[in-house]
Amino acid sequence: MSQVTSTDLYEITMALSYVREGMRAPATFSLFARNLPPGRGFLVAAGLEPALDYLSEFRVEKSDTDEFAQVMHLPPEDLATLRGLAFDGQVRAVPEGRLVFAGEPLLEVTAPLPQAQLVETYLLSLVCHQTAVAAKAGRCVLAAAGRPLVDFSLRRCHGPEAGSQAARLCAMVGFAGTSNVAAAARYGIDASGTMAHSYIECFPSEEDAFRAFARTHRGPLTFLVDTYDTDRGVVAAARVLSELARGPGCGIRLDSGDLGLLAHRARETLDEAGLRDVRIIASGGLDEYAVDALVRDGAPIDVFAVGTRVGVAADAPCLDAAYKLVEYDGAPVMKLSSAKVTAPAPKQVFRGPGLQDVIGLETEEPPEGTEPLLRTVMRDGLRTGPPDDLGAARARFEADLGELPPAARRIEGPVPTAPQYSARLEEVTAQVRERLESRGRHGRPEERTEPTGSADPASA
Amino acid sequence: MSQVTSTDLYEITMALSYVREGMRAPATFSLFARNLPPGRGFLVAAGLEPALDYLSEFRVEKSDTDEFAQVMHLPPEDLATLRGLAFDGQVRAVPEGRLVFAGEPLLEVTAPLPQAQLVETYLLSLVCHQTAVAAKAGRCVLAAAGRPLVDFSLRRCHGPEAGSQAARLCAMVGFAGTSNVAAAARYGIDASGTMAHSYIECFPSEEDAFRAFARTHRGPLTFLVDTYDTDRGVVAAARVLSELARGPGCGIRLDSGDLGLLAHRARETLDEAGLRDVRIIASGGLDEYAVDALVRDGAPIDVFAVGTRVGVAADAPCLDAAYKLVEYDGAPVMKLSSAKVTAPAPKQVFRGPGLQDVIGLETEEPPEGTEPLLRTVMRDGLRTGPPDDLGAARARFEADLGELPPAARRIEGPVPTAPQYSARLEEVTAQVRERLESRGRHGRPEERTEPTGSADPASA
Repeated sequence: MSQVTSTDLYEITMALSYVREGMRAPATFSLFARNLPPGRGFLVAAGLEPALDYLSEFRVEKSDTDEFAQVMHLPPEDLATLRGLAFDGQVRAVPEGRLVFAGEPLLEVTAPLPQAQLVETYLLSLVCHQTAVAAKAGRCVLAAAGRPLVDFSLRRCHGPEAGSQAARLCAMVGFAGTSNVAAAARYGIDASGTMAHSYIECFPSEEDAFRAFARTHRGPLTFLVDTYDTDRGVVAAARVLSELARGPGCGIRLDSGDLGLLAHRARETLDEAGLRDVRIIASGGLDEYAVDALVRDGAPIDVFAVGTRVGVAADAPCLDAAYKLVEYDGAPVMKLSSAKVTAPAPKQVFRGPGLQDVIGLETEEPPEGTEPLLRTVMRDGLRTGPPDDLGAARARFEADLGELPPAARRIEGPVPTAPQYSARLEEVTAQVRERLESRGRHGRPEERTEPTGSADPASA
Repeated sequence: MSQVTSTDLYEITMALSYVREGMRAPATFSLFARNLPPGRGFLVAAGLEPALDYLSEFRVEKSDTDEFAQVMHLPPEDLATLRGLAFDGQVRAVPEGRLVFAGEPLLEVTAPLPQAQLVETYLLSLVCHQTAVAAKAGRCVLAAAGRPLVDFSLRRCHGPEAGSQAARLCAMVGFAGTSNVAAAARYGIDASGTMAHSYIECFPSEEDAFRAFARTHRGPLTFLVDTYDTDRGVVAAARVLSELARGPGCGIRLDSGDLGLLAHRARETLDEAGLRDVRIIASGGLDEYAVDALVRDGAPIDVFAVGTRVGVAADAPCLDAAYKLVEYDGAPVMKLSSAKVTAPAPKQVFRGPGLQDVIGLETEEPPEGTEPLLRTVMRDGLRTGPPDDLGAARARFEADLGELPPAARRIEGPVPTAPQYSARLEEVTAQVRERLESRGRHGRPEERTEPTGSADPASA
């Protein structure tokens, strides 16, 4: 499936129109989340690296224009004018791993209008998905309070590629491993996993199963203990682990029931057997809420394996993100309709201590003591440096997390940090609004006298 | 990325163990949803066609075993024993498009144990995702009550491939089109889309934008009218559409605000301009709840474009589905732990009128007046027939939907139809439970006297 045709039809109809009208002036689009979903105190910038891969390779080939023509029921030559269009623009972006908030551009693309438009859908699909999942995974890291986490999400993700990205994003926020073999190999993540309930069921008894597993695998062993009765499973596992003495790194996994209670009883059984270094791994429908509750209750769980709810960011699987035109041919632009007003002009995010952010114009000087978040990562369609490293992204995440205010760190009812707008950005926004209104393209008469009121005609 | 390594590591450790222990007897695994998510009165069987593609191509190559060895930190020759394993088993499955309920097998795989185990993760990832999205899309069809729906979800889906599947699944339940070009071409779906707000913003006025679009595109036109002020946008669109007289198929699109109210006013404006055949298309955060409310309020909306919330099945993005071993080497097996008891043995679903289903043994005779849902779709690793047709799946969906009881059809608070278990299946379940318990592998003493009580030690 071509990356170029993996797009909304309207990108093609608009690009065609622009090319036919000779509208190839530079346009800047800004990709940002309008709001944070409930239950999120922060987002984690993600999706940039795949986005840059996509833009580096973006070029409309004849096979693509043929596909456009096919679905538009047009002769192929009608689409020929788009052939050879490649992405040759500039990208400024927040590096992966940084915490971001509502209204902050994650990515700004500046390119000739047709190209800048054509890449909208694919960029949104990468960034919306990955930022949503990274934020969910980041909350699990907060909840685990230093205990290791492992990603078990592949089977619930929206297809294998989504699963691979989930593993990458979990690693980006500090997970210790993934069950996903392909992702582990692709991204250099530790792979994790031993046996399912079906394994146990294929043997006459749990103990037979554990012994067979040990016969066929060297090194540390992890036994799944909840196939029939967890307490008895722990006893069987302890017996086999004691006899085999495979050294450190062995564990048992609990996958159902009251994990806190079972972990307490399992710890006791293991300790009594002299297996103090055998770890307890918990899995089964865990998310940041469940992990938080277990940690606060002092459950003796050494590793949390999270899957289902994290890989799809179950409580907020999509982000209300937009790719908005903010400047065309040197003039700032904005949309005024109902409740979706967006500030015009290319922007920068200036980050102060404690993640106190100011969203300003790209051209502004950074206020003292602040750091600009958006970096130029692509120029003339080429990356400005080598691909980013997952470890570097993790370091950025950890540094930002260390600065995150307590209200935004909360697992229950977090309150995200609200960025401020700079005086210059407020000024430009007011000017553009005035210009649009004075051209008579906007507003019913009564609204003109109250320019700060709601632009939603339905609320008038 | 290899389809074979896109799996959980434990599938590999188990398969290795089976091969080393010489355990290659036939195993049957059953893939089913344990429960329906809240807000679902039914599921729509989906993911089978991609699953059969996957199984047809499944073969462990040297590059795969090298990748296994890499992530397991083992010498490549340790994994050589898995090389050349191909899927050569049988698959019985519910054809795509059929409505299914909790506990009903969507798919049963019978193959030598290592192969049957190795395909677990990938099959779950396809079927969980697609069945969840198809069910959500199916509810939109109920809500739209005959009005056409279009899929706009690509940008919010979990990556481009998930977007392509969303388009396919929406078409499967009867959507009229998709914005997704690649999916439209791949699956023969009508493509839909014209312009974004950014298009309007690139011109001095809305009317200029509409005229430019008309100059550069032949055929019917759809104008987006809510960039600045929706009522004025409709007036401008009506003026241009009247002048150009492009014939039937033209429309306007509302993308924000109170869609019902705006649609009423837009209809009035259009009718007054003699544009009775210009359609009103609504989009912007719609799902089955919003569509239902608009339809019940009599909003004059001709087409609903749904995206964000449908493509990711926002309120239930993952399914609590399992791939459970139900028979190994001719003996039925089951898991007894906490609240996850599953019935043993290969199964069949016998569907009666009104979708009154009985889950029974595969070997049972269909009760009179019922139809078996699972068909043999693969034998010896080969499809038993040509790939299924999207139109055939749609026909199955429509037929089942016509039989769905009112409680399960409800948009708010649906109550799913509950399948019954056959007497034979209950019998076998009891026998296997007794066998497992008598082997002393399960249960604390007090539980033995109450075999029908909870198997969850935490609740004891």
